[in-house]
Amino acid sequence: MPGDQSPGRPRPTRRQLLFGGAVAGFGAAAAVGADQAIRLAGRPGPAGAADAAADASPAGDGELTGSGVVPFYGPHQAGIATLPQAHATLVALDLRDGINRDGLRRLMQLLTDDAARLTRGEPALADSEPELAHVPASLTVTFAFGPEFVRRASTAAVQAPAWLRPLPAFGIDRLEAAWSDGDLLLQVAADDPFTVAHAVRMLLKDTRSFATVRWTQPGFRRARGSEAPGTTMRNLFGQVDGTVNPAPPTLDFEQLVWIREGAFAGGTGMVVRRIRMDLDKWDRLDRSGREQSVGRTLANGAPLTGAEERDEPDFAAKNAAGFPVIAEFSHLRRARSENTSERFFRRAYNYDDAPSREQISNSGLLFIAFQADVDAQFVPIQQRLDELDLLNEWTTPIGSAVFVVPPGCAEGGYVGEGILG
Amino acid sequence: MPGDQSPGRPRPTRRQLLFGGAVAGFGAAAAVGADQAIRLAGRPGPAGAADAAADASPAGDGELTGSGVVPFYGPHQAGIATLPQAHATLVALDLRDGINRDGLRRLMQLLTDDAARLTRGEPALADSEPELAHVPASLTVTFAFGPEFVRRASTAAVQAPAWLRPLPAFGIDRLEAAWSDGDLLLQVAADDPFTVAHAVRMLLKDTRSFATVRWTQPGFRRARGSEAPGTTMRNLFGQVDGTVNPAPPTLDFEQLVWIREGAFAGGTGMVVRRIRMDLDKWDRLDRSGREQSVGRTLANGAPLTGAEERDEPDFAAKNAAGFPVIAEFSHLRRARSENTSERFFRRAYNYDDAPSREQISNSGLLFIAFQADVDAQFVPIQQRLDELDLLNEWTTPIGSAVFVVPPGCAEGGYVGEGILG
Ligand code: HEM
Ligand code: HEM
Repeated sequence: MPGDQSPGRPRPTRRQLLFGGAVAGFGAAAAVGADQAIRLAGRPGPAGAADAAADASPAGDGELTGSGVVPFYGPHQAGIATLPQAHATLVALDLRDGINRDGLRRLMQLLTDDAARLTRGEPALADSEPELAHVPASLTVTFAFGPEFVRRASTAAVQAPAWLRPLPAFGIDRLEAAWSDGDLLLQVAADDPFTVAHAVRMLLKDTRSFATVRWTQPGFRRARGSEAPGTTMRNLFGQVDGTVNPAPPTLDFEQLVWIREGAFAGGTGMVVRRIRMDLDKWDRLDRSGREQSVGRTLANGAPLTGAEERDEPDFAAKNAAGFPVIAEFSHLRRARSENTSERFFRRAYNYDDAPSREQISNSGLLFIAFQADVDAQFVPIQQRLDELDLLNEWTTPIGSAVFVVPPGCAEGGYVGEGILG
Repeated sequence: MPGDQSPGRPRPTRRQLLFGGAVAGFGAAAAVGADQAIRLAGRPGPAGAADAAADASPAGDGELTGSGVVPFYGPHQAGIATLPQAHATLVALDLRDGINRDGLRRLMQLLTDDAARLTRGEPALADSEPELAHVPASLTVTFAFGPEFVRRASTAAVQAPAWLRPLPAFGIDRLEAAWSDGDLLLQVAADDPFTVAHAVRMLLKDTRSFATVRWTQPGFRRARGSEAPGTTMRNLFGQVDGTVNPAPPTLDFEQLVWIREGAFAGGTGMVVRRIRMDLDKWDRLDRSGREQSVGRTLANGAPLTGAEERDEPDFAAKNAAGFPVIAEFSHLRRARSENTSERFFRRAYNYDDAPSREQISNSGLLFIAFQADVDAQFVPIQQRLDELDLLNEWTTPIGSAVFVVPPGCAEGGYVGEGILG
């Protein structure tokens, strides 16, 4: 019911959030979030490593997985610095014709309210299955806007980020419309697949009059508690994937990921690429070929010039024949630019769809990258990989989308108020 | 490579399993499985409650979810008495033309070997991503045969169970071929979705020359550790689902589920129904209507005549107006026959597919029932529900399949040796 301005959904102004209401309003997150709240208001504080760390270990030791709660309110939306949960479903929506700025504001107020409640382990306001809400399992709901959303939402005063448009076309791309673009993205993640299913449904109910579903992409990682904490996930190729990643809680992460200025300060840029992995072809490659394609061992993910996963790769090292040990065409070599500002935070999930009659599997990576500036940080690397990357032999991008993630909000506020308020 | 009789895949005879090799061969399972091994050989022992119990708590307290191991070998296949894991993928295969009894034997030897290794947390023999195998997460692989498999596998000496054929047509059915029938079923279940994905792929690789994929149905329950142990799962309607269920480890379970005589002794009958749940329509029903449709409360699943989930329903109780408190048309009333042999063990999963453009969700139940005799135990209940069951207003069977689950095997044996050996 889009017209329904129920009393439980108050609307503070953007002013309130930025000057005054903000810090007090962050509630549970206030203890760790204060310096970031200040930064939101335009005065960068010291890197808020503490809150990222707090966010990154949502469920305490010995507690039930299901009872983990990740604070929804805060200067940044949850689901980015949050330690990746076991399950995530991305839903991209197309706005219906005629939904204007007022409609978008109502939509984001409804969705913010739903998300705030559900992530606390409470039913949404009009929750039709309230009993299903009581297992938050570190649920996060992250909202991101596509170009059309920002176009409809913006007034003359607000500039959309210049990079908020489809990525340039790459030679390796075989994009399908069914997996690309979208006006509004919901990233719903939790350690329990049931929690994700319920939250997605509650959110989609409230989007019904505003938007239609464009695509849905469920992804998974290892179950929470499956492996020792700190283990880097492997992908479906069997590779240790995610070793070199400016992960929270570090200053590096903070600086690479969060937008610093303008209406989206405290937010970030989000690239979603659906990359098919040809496991049948991969399986025909021998072990040494596999290791060379990336430049790291399969056993523990160490660079081919090292012994341990976290060893620094030595790109100058040569083998007996005089060739580089880590090949020029390896993914590792190609994915790393001399320019250290060309970096981003990867937070990927795996997908495994039903195989067709003659297939063995139909799987790949839901590659998700967060960075303050998509054009400056992501595109150059994707360009390098497009030009040369041995891994391209076994991977094919079949979907692509770019979104801007608005900052978080304080209790009583709503996500998107920076441009809709 | 179907012709590949590798040295790592020994072939003991059925004799060896039944008389002699069996008990010793059960290895780790021997301590609890001995009385069942004897039963397999035709001499029913006392109900083996102990092994079901052992099987039902695979991962010890404080251990990583990923390290749980459910013994593969034993008189019964795992994945039936096993406490339902968080994830299960059912894959139904169609046998290729010309695959005869010898081919099926080779196929089941390959698959048994794969399953035995993977469930121990070891790579399959030709595992292309061996590193992915090290998180068993209580993996079970259960094989079940459709009518065509048994027809091709059987000699004159072996009788297929009379009930091994599609269920009779029901008025409520809207079956789609894409979700129905199949010659060979793999039920692959674990507490980690990644473990399931890898195991399914390894198994399907070995089926490639023998069969094509007919359908794949992934299902989920709550994550392991999400809720307190012993909590009855809710389904996507929000109902407590699974309260009255002859569950292991009980004599009742043993007697209802396991086939006692013939080539499939120690096995069971498996019914898979894909039942769409119309959540949009359900959401328009008020709480009292929902509770009446089943005859139990939403709050805790208590019968409408009781206070606690496990209270016995009182079908004779009348309300002030003189009507039964638990309505005649309620699912609870209809699903329970006077004839107590008309019962089975339900081990269901939820599914939640991508919604289409205008849908909010596309979900339902992967209803799985195990019973020794499908015609005598399952069909009469499904017939009662077909005639009258208020729940039919919101549920539609869209897939249906019947399989016979052969008994387990001892180390060195293979699943299906009872008819293929
Ligand atoms: C299915 C596709 C892909 C696979 C299987 C894959 C796999 C890997 C693996 C195994 C590593 C080494 C371990 C690590 O540091 O994480 C790695 C590193 C990396 N990948 Fe990818 N990747 C894929 C796609 C991409 C894409 C599309 C991008 C960006 C456009 C990307 C950017 C990176 C970066 C930046 C690194 C770290 C390089 C460094 O050490 O500095 N990858 N990837
Ligand atoms: C989507 C479809 C279905 C839903 C949502 C559903 C839901 C439920 C619920 C909530 C209960 C009560 C709690 C419990 O004892 O588990 C129940 C009981 C039961 N259901 Fe279903 N059910 C469905 C389909 C079926 C089917 C197809 C059958 C068998 C043909 C079946 C057989 C039973 C039985 C035997 C019971 C226990 C009745 C007793 O108390 O003796 N159900 N079901």
